Amino acid sequence: MKTLLKNLTVIPVTRDSLSFNADILISGSVIEEIGPGLVCPEADVVRDCTGLIALPGFVNAHTHLSMTLMRNYKDTCSNLQDWLGEIFPIEDRMTDEDIYYGSLLGLAELIKSGTTSFADMYFHQWMTARACRETGMRAFISQTLFGDLEETKKRLSETRLDREIDNELLRKDYAVHAVYTCTKETYEYTAAAARERKAVVNTHLSETKKEMDDCLRQTGMLPAVYLEKTGFFDVPCYAAHGVWLQEEETEILRCHDVGIVHNPSSNCKLASGIAPVSRFKSAGLTVGLGTDGASSNNNLSMLKEMRLAAMISAVSTMNVGALRPYDIIRMATLDSAKVLKADHLIGSLEKGKKADIAIINPDSANMTPMNDIFSAIVFSADERNIDSVYVNGKCLFCEGKLTTIDEDAVIHEALKRWDILRKEG
Amino acid sequence: MKTLLKNLTVIPVTRDSLSFNADILISGSVIEEIGPGLVCPEADVVRDCTGLIALPGFVNAHTHLSMTLMRNYKDTCSNLQDWLGEIFPIEDRMTDEDIYYGSLLGLAELIKSGTTSFADMYFHQWMTARACRETGMRAFISQTLFGDLEETKKRLSETRLDREIDNELLRKDYAVHAVYTCTKETYEYTAAAARERKAVVNTHLSETKKEMDDCLRQTGMLPAVYLEKTGFFDVPCYAAHGVWLQEEETEILRCHDVGIVHNPSSNCKLASGIAPVSRFKSAGLTVGLGTDGASSNNNLSMLKEMRLAAMISAVSTMNVGALRPYDIIRMATLDSAKVLKADHLIGSLEKGKKADIAIINPDSANMTPMNDIFSAIVFSADERNIDSVYVNGKCLFCEGKLTTIDEDAVIHEALKRWDILRKEG
Repeated sequence: MKTLLKNLTVIPVTRDSLSFNADILISGSVIEEIGPGLVCPEADVVRDCTGLIALPGFVNAHTHLSMTLMRNYKDTCSNLQDWLGEIFPIEDRMTDEDIYYGSLLGLAELIKSGTTSFADMYFHQWMTARACRETGMRAFISQTLFGDLEETKKRLSETRLDREIDNELLRKDYAVHAVYTCTKETYEYTAAAARERKAVVNTHLSETKKEMDDCLRQTGMLPAVYLEKTGFFDVPCYAAHGVWLQEEETEILRCHDVGIVHNPSSNCKLASGIAPVSRFKSAGLTVGLGTDGASSNNNLSMLKEMRLAAMISAVSTMNVGALRPYDIIRMATLDSAKVLKADHLIGSLEKGKKADIAIINPDSANMTPMNDIFSAIVFSADERNIDSVYVNGKCLFCEGKLTTIDEDAVIHEALKRWDILRKEG
Repeated sequence: MKTLLKNLTVIPVTRDSLSFNADILISGSVIEEIGPGLVCPEADVVRDCTGLIALPGFVNAHTHLSMTLMRNYKDTCSNLQDWLGEIFPIEDRMTDEDIYYGSLLGLAELIKSGTTSFADMYFHQWMTARACRETGMRAFISQTLFGDLEETKKRLSETRLDREIDNELLRKDYAVHAVYTCTKETYEYTAAAARERKAVVNTHLSETKKEMDDCLRQTGMLPAVYLEKTGFFDVPCYAAHGVWLQEEETEILRCHDVGIVHNPSSNCKLASGIAPVSRFKSAGLTVGLGTDGASSNNNLSMLKEMRLAAMISAVSTMNVGALRPYDIIRMATLDSAKVLKADHLIGSLEKGKKADIAIINPDSANMTPMNDIFSAIVFSADERNIDSVYVNGKCLFCEGKLTTIDEDAVIHEALKRWDILRKEG
């Protein structure tokens, strides 16, 4: 299958801030060619994209997809810890079917807002994998571990993820939830298991001041110092949040090439704090972008996440140029892919990479005039401007419609599942 | 003309946090009745709105509408003062036609995102008034003054606003730009002129630290202390920004019933700071919400403004409950109307008020499940969820289409005007 997209403004995100007019030839799952005046007589589809903008599909580097079921639930809690106290009992009751429909609901939202891949940390991960396989979505799905070593071994023995993840678009990672919910042995054991399978690991890290303070009190070490000693960073690793990371910790992360996933909505909404992203970047860390779960955001739109990241970086540093609009786009695409150790496959539009593409239609009042194409995408665009979305060469969102998800049916089922789940409490 | 909207979930914004199922009967320009099971055999239109949410249309209490032409222009400047240095020369070249098409472009964007009225401070205001008249939009349009007394008198003698504003949806206010661009005499003269005409005045106030510091150095007084002495607050007054207002100043504003318009996007984007909204509210000030101009935002969506206001209030106070989602909705509707001294007409859905209504369709993945209707609107909704918009009883946005603006034609003309304007420089 070959698709030729003609006459686009392309933001390739391959090197410094750049856009140009070009065509994109997709062959199967990859970008076969990108450049001006491409001709392909054997193309199955030729689409005139005059006036449209192509950029790498957004890489949502940290979320909990099926938490969409808990969107806006109990979000009057005063902090992360209290809120988790409301959420955990419901999570304990969740079934495979809940996770499946929660995942499909999240996938519908992700794809419609231009996201082409995501990293997921949650439970019953095999059902998220199944939803992705059926949808044709790319994902980095973590076998998620929680609690002590006994619970970790139990989860690992009971998982059905290996069976469901067997698909070229899916990768199995290992996640340990956080230092405040998991033991040292869980981190150590998971690191060893991941190393054996050449897998990538990830964790929540230094999300709140309380997490940092408690870790210091209990272990005498800052969270990243503590985790380094477990060997967790000796495996390819990424970490979510990092709001409270101290200089000593960023140096540890840099040495181990641990990238940070910035989650501005969740960090603001839960009053966790503002991660010092420009300081991280100056310190040599790679910083990607994620929405976190829809129950602490409360949506899964990377467009909203980019805008908020830009806003809070400027105001928290009192420096408009702390992160430029192009930096933000890069965070949401290539740098997220780098953080996930997947930038050989995705994150930019270039020959040989997977055809994960978001196409934006700026022909509406809210994007007129554009003046600066990067600013226009970060500050002016909204979800209405997402024209189409290709994942692995396949168009999953086209002319305002999802091609592989029946959104109405998924909404109906998700509401039914959530209704049961909530009433059980 | 009578329109009966049936089976809505209504957020009336009349008292504490509340929503209920009801019908709304619009008679001419006003809400004739609101409640369950309304019957009106003589209704011209009866619309089944099952599943939809009605709330007061957003009141954008501070913007510069025709600056949409400069959207994303030179937004790499490092602060407000530098950016104004780029913007002012272009403004000097703007013609009536530029303002007219810039206004229509802004109106298209406002209406499509659920806004039903706005307060505008800009030049060539008569053309903004004309665009509003033709569109059927409600507006509070300021005769805007700038510079010294001589320039003020010149502007007042040359204005054509009185001629164009003669319309029941339009009100003429008086604006003095700011303490750093206008003289004491301009404030005094404008206050006197407004008092004579029983008009409302407004100004930019304490937007940046530099403004505050310069005012202190030049006058020995904080900006609000200085303005109080000009008599400007003796006239019904509202003030935009207020980022750097000190306690002594909030007390002055409270005494004179001067409301503040919070502009979070502009304040973050230009690194001006975060206005302490919950402190203002505790001090007894009324705080509304505005987008500021599209060239410092860079859009005109009150949905984005609400979300950002919520996010930064939580993280800047480290208190999730500093502003609750319902408080934010109220800021964007009733409190904005109060700030503009127009809450007798608009800002809530109740019998006798003007039929300015935004209708939201939550039947999409990104608003499923809602769980908390207020959180869902503030955090999860986006512009795709705006189903229809009524201003003064007339449907200006209906089934995805503007009824009184030809958006394509306006985009075309606005781009043409901007192209000329930019090249002249």
